[in-house]
Amino acid sequence: MQADVPPREDLGRALCIITGASRGFGRTISKEVSRLVKPRSVLVLAARSGDDLRALQADLAASDAGGTGLVVHCVEADLGLKEGVESVIRASKEASSEDIDHLILVNNAGSLGDVSRYTKSFINMSEVDSYLSFNVSSAMCLTAGVLQAFPQRAGLKRTIVNITSLCALQPFPSWVLYCTGKAAREMIFRVLAEEEPDLRVLSYSPGPLDTAMQMEARTKTADPSLRETYSAMFSQGQLLTCEASCAKLMKVLLEDDYPSGAHLDVYDV
Amino acid sequence: MQADVPPREDLGRALCIITGASRGFGRTISKEVSRLVKPRSVLVLAARSGDDLRALQADLAASDAGGTGLVVHCVEADLGLKEGVESVIRASKEASSEDIDHLILVNNAGSLGDVSRYTKSFINMSEVDSYLSFNVSSAMCLTAGVLQAFPQRAGLKRTIVNITSLCALQPFPSWVLYCTGKAAREMIFRVLAEEEPDLRVLSYSPGPLDTAMQMEARTKTADPSLRETYSAMFSQGQLLTCEASCAKLMKVLLEDDYPSGAHLDVYDV
Repeated sequence: MQADVPPREDLGRALCIITGASRGFGRTISKEVSRLVKPRSVLVLAARSGDDLRALQADLAASDAGGTGLVVHCVEADLGLKEGVESVIRASKEASSEDIDHLILVNNAGSLGDVSRYTKSFINMSEVDSYLSFNVSSAMCLTAGVLQAFPQRAGLKRTIVNITSLCALQPFPSWVLYCTGKAAREMIFRVLAEEEPDLRVLSYSPGPLDTAMQMEARTKTADPSLRETYSAMFSQGQLLTCEASCAKLMKVLLEDDYPSGAHLDVYDV
Repeated sequence: MQADVPPREDLGRALCIITGASRGFGRTISKEVSRLVKPRSVLVLAARSGDDLRALQADLAASDAGGTGLVVHCVEADLGLKEGVESVIRASKEASSEDIDHLILVNNAGSLGDVSRYTKSFINMSEVDSYLSFNVSSAMCLTAGVLQAFPQRAGLKRTIVNITSLCALQPFPSWVLYCTGKAAREMIFRVLAEEEPDLRVLSYSPGPLDTAMQMEARTKTADPSLRETYSAMFSQGQLLTCEASCAKLMKVLLEDDYPSGAHLDVYDV
């Protein structure tokens, strides 16, 4: 951060689109963002489970942010399908208003893939194709669609966040789908940052979070050493809470001095 | 290379499977490999164009290698489809014989994708899905299928080559599909190398080659600066011939002392 510019105290009058918002880290992001945006901001929350989304919507309505006129839209959508991506774009267009000064898209939705098997077992192309469609194509096409729907204009800041992982950078045995998907996704956003210098593009790696995905990791991972590492982190209380990691992400977004396209790890913030 | 071990002079009695074999770098690899394998080796050449494959087969039959009993099988297959991948695996099983001592799979097939547009234009999920299916899923599933068909056994060396690019490591504006696909592919092979220490896994970046793909790059690339860079390389004779780059790849395979899973660039050899 430049020494003479204090960090912003809020995220502006924002339209914030969050995928995978119903659970885990996405749910926490939704709550934290709702506290940091100005009154009459809009959240568009997308996930497969409509029930979980509506529960989150009720929580937000009952919170302080709800009282200041935060508008929350829920989009029940499967981002592995073109229709799902399109419905999030459509809902975002409909939900937006003219006085929005900050567009924020958080590409958070993702799946671990089957970590109980090694690469040599992945002979079924449909399985790999649908993993990549949900984890890679949807992030690319949703981002493209949102950028087209909200083109560059004076007074509009545009921030694109990609929730990434150390797995985008390092190979983890028996996690071939996850590593491949995260590496692919991160490259999309690096290219985007090169192409669109007016955008703020961030790949944020939230660290090992105490979520359902981590439980899957420590119980199902085929590689014994990796499985034990995660089990030990859990039993020794080393997993991060979603709140702690999300606080770091919010700090980064408010300070807003990361190089566009960068990979930032929670432990580096 | 260890100082006291001379490089091998041949690739053994090999079964060598090469995708995208009909043109460009794949065609050159096929020819070079045919010169470096022992008599009664087998080549399985896969590509979409059966005519081009048969022309290559005739060339190989007329060469010195053909005279020493090299067996060449052509598989006309679209690797973007599950049936295509399966037909390469099936043909490889049928073509193999018991005295093979080196299995070599060269994942060379790949496409540039549409480089005439920027990331923000990629709103069509089907386009992205089919790019990833041909360039990522097929390489994963073909590799898995080949490893299952030819499991580890005493006396069998197994080498998996991934033809990669600088684009796997660095973002190139207007090349989002290519960069994303290459980053994803390279991660597959890094994970594989971690999982299967008996394999030899190499991601080889052949450099800017004087091929049809390069012509596409210098004529269609949307980013003006990148397009000019490639045009200048072409007009100043800085593109590499497939033969020169392939000679480096063969040197690496014969010396066989790269760390498994490594990315090696032609300019580093």
